[in-house]
Amino acid sequence: MAHRPIITLTTDFGTNDHFVGAMKGVILDIVPDAEIVDICHAVQAFDVLDGALAISQAYSYFPSRTVHVVVVDPGVGTARRPILASSEKYHFVAPDNGVLSLVYAREEGMRVRHITAEHYFLQPVSNTFHARDIFAPVAAYLAKEVDSHKFGEEVEDYVKFTAPKPKMVEANRLRGVVLKVDRFGNLITNITPQDVPALFGGAANGFKILVGSREITEMRAAYAEGSPGQVFGILGSMGFLEIAANRAAASQLTGAGKGSEISVVLGGGVAAGA
Amino acid sequence: MAHRPIITLTTDFGTNDHFVGAMKGVILDIVPDAEIVDICHAVQAFDVLDGALAISQAYSYFPSRTVHVVVVDPGVGTARRPILASSEKYHFVAPDNGVLSLVYAREEGMRVRHITAEHYFLQPVSNTFHARDIFAPVAAYLAKEVDSHKFGEEVEDYVKFTAPKPKMVEANRLRGVVLKVDRFGNLITNITPQDVPALFGGAANGFKILVGSREITEMRAAYAEGSPGQVFGILGSMGFLEIAANRAAASQLTGAGKGSEISVVLGGGVAAGA
Amino acid sequence: MAHRPIITLTTDFGTNDHFVGAMKGVILDIVPDAEIVDICHAVQAFDVLDGALAISQAYSYFPSRTVHVVVVDPGVGTARRPILASSEKYHFVAPDNGVLSLVYAREEGMRVRHITAEHYFLQPVSNTFHARDIFAPVAAYLAKEVDSHKFGEEVEDYVKFTAPKPKMVEANRLRGVVLKVDRFGNLITNITPQDVPALFGGAANGFKILVGSREITEMRAAYAEGSPGQVFGILGSMGFLEIAANRAAASQLTGAGKGSEISVVLGGGVAAGA
Repeated sequence: MAHRPIITLTTDFGTNDHFVGAMKGVILDIVPDAEIVDICHAVQAFDVLDGALAISQAYSYFPSRTVHVVVVDPGVGTARRPILASSEKYHFVAPDNGVLSLVYAREEGMRVRHITAEHYFLQPVSNTFHARDIFAPVAAYLAKEVDSHKFGEEVEDYVKFTAPKPKMVEANRLRGVVLKVDRFGNLITNITPQDVPALFGGAANGFKILVGSREITEMRAAYAEGSPGQVFGILGSMGFLEIAANRAAASQLTGAGKGSEISVVLGGGVAAGA
Repeated sequence: MAHRPIITLTTDFGTNDHFVGAMKGVILDIVPDAEIVDICHAVQAFDVLDGALAISQAYSYFPSRTVHVVVVDPGVGTARRPILASSEKYHFVAPDNGVLSLVYAREEGMRVRHITAEHYFLQPVSNTFHARDIFAPVAAYLAKEVDSHKFGEEVEDYVKFTAPKPKMVEANRLRGVVLKVDRFGNLITNITPQDVPALFGGAANGFKILVGSREITEMRAAYAEGSPGQVFGILGSMGFLEIAANRAAASQLTGAGKGSEISVVLGGGVAAGA
Repeated sequence: MAHRPIITLTTDFGTNDHFVGAMKGVILDIVPDAEIVDICHAVQAFDVLDGALAISQAYSYFPSRTVHVVVVDPGVGTARRPILASSEKYHFVAPDNGVLSLVYAREEGMRVRHITAEHYFLQPVSNTFHARDIFAPVAAYLAKEVDSHKFGEEVEDYVKFTAPKPKMVEANRLRGVVLKVDRFGNLITNITPQDVPALFGGAANGFKILVGSREITEMRAAYAEGSPGQVFGILGSMGFLEIAANRAAASQLTGAGKGSEISVVLGGGVAAGA
């Protein structure tokens, strides 16, 4: 292998407890040369979609052979399966609850296995901390180049959900949702350029974006292009329409937050959709 | 040495300041190949018992020769000693204020030294940031395999406290305490299976657990086994009785928190204790 | 090169999103053996001075050849330039908005280049996430020992501000400001021993420090030397006068915070200034 194995961690464990530290200890005890990278431990507790978003936005920047561990696991200790999903480039180790759904949608050639090879687990396996007892050691052995087929049989019936998609609710009105609010108070929506090309291409005429208490009529190319107090739309780095403000939190200015409805209303004569 | 030296950090410094970054710089300047692992920087400020819990829950998962740095140090700059505690497997670098007490209780063959070898310190030593000026460089030199006896003389009178233990306050009533609340709102108590085997073995008959505003009558094997809104007991991954709820914060549902009293009342005919 | 390349990150991205994880992926994809160290991701959002303080307090502890990435970038996507500032020991990669001002003030022989070599960028470059698309890959190529002159031409007109300095407002009265509040509630001021040597040297006679609701008349050498509830001054590890309390938050006890005014009034007969 040309370089140290890389293992990333995405969880809803926060960083106030010893949980992440214990996972790292387990990994390093098996593969001491691993480089462990925290992607995010602030996934909303128990929120599988939020975890799916986090890993989907970061995994593809990592080098080939990276092992991504994703643990948002409200069903820990029940019959939900631990799985290993592998593409040509990456491995993903996670509970089978849909937290990899957005990865399945983006990454080609994924094969999913039900992890059953208990000799790779940390014994005794607790009922409440499979991240430490199952996911971390499995990731470590993958990083040591144990073949994926040794961890269990391939399955087809793994859990997969579709992220909420925006819908045309009237001829000129698209309704979407705020997927998350980022650290700066930007509202990340589920609306992409494919959904309303006119809005992003500068061809929209008299459009309105309705979210929270605001009616937004401007699109900007950079956060700093807005004037003070102004709320505007922007194509964000996640590939979605964001509602933002210059050096201010759009979430506060609009009163909108995660789960809020957002509507894009296009003016006369501009067709929606590609 | 077969692999890179590993140094872990457990502090009450939080991650909002440059404190942890400066420690890492000091370490890497001495031993650039070290792998530095954050266990937790969110120990409650000045709370030595909380720090003792954090390190005790994570240290043992790391490989042999790991150097654990533990800094919860309200007495920084006073006469309290910097110490190096070594077992066959690990080194621990910490202020001598009891923050290693739970490690002393679990790890065998510990020898404790008063760190006095000032030529290993970062000069000039400040009065307010020994983590940067003493603990980090000492850990780095340990990681470079400087012999522990070079740091100072062995001492026997190091500070050590006993964690609060649950007590039988009546024939069938055990009283304990909530040691901490984790990220999910689970109440981690100081009650172990050794204290009330019947409760964990499924043999308890008509037991009640009293905590905050709730009277709990169910034990569960997994968080997800509880019904919505139900608060139950569970054997947590830390080895203690936890009070939990399915996808909800038991701390909110019970109104209890760190330091709250908890009682286990066993039904007739079931003996407490092993 | 004797050891792995080291890259540090200082940002206002927080750790709740995937931003830092994506940056790390980009870096590791270019230079998989890099050691990436988080200095701080909790710089106040959009606050360039706060970022300048954070990096200035940590960078110098790292080994030679460390690449420091500093991203507090309210002007992302506008005409503000990405820059590479190099001294004999370090590289700094940042937006040209003054976030390196305190580094310029401390580190000698800095040469600053306007980064224009787009073939080192992650394509396509977004308008909203240059940390991922420009700063991270440039840092990675620097860590791979690409020569700094390959990234762009040297410039002289880079943005540089002076940190707020305390002023003598009367013959015996120095007025300063609280630069930040740390995790423990200590108030970090901009007053140094050079500004009032008498205060720090123990020669001050009848001095008063006025901040928030308090009149402070004691200097202490260690946090633990204060009596309960007492607020005192101390020379902090950042080299500034701090207002602190023993195991308590001076910010709460004084009601003062970031940006609050602070005055040092010296008693009769003691000269201020060196």
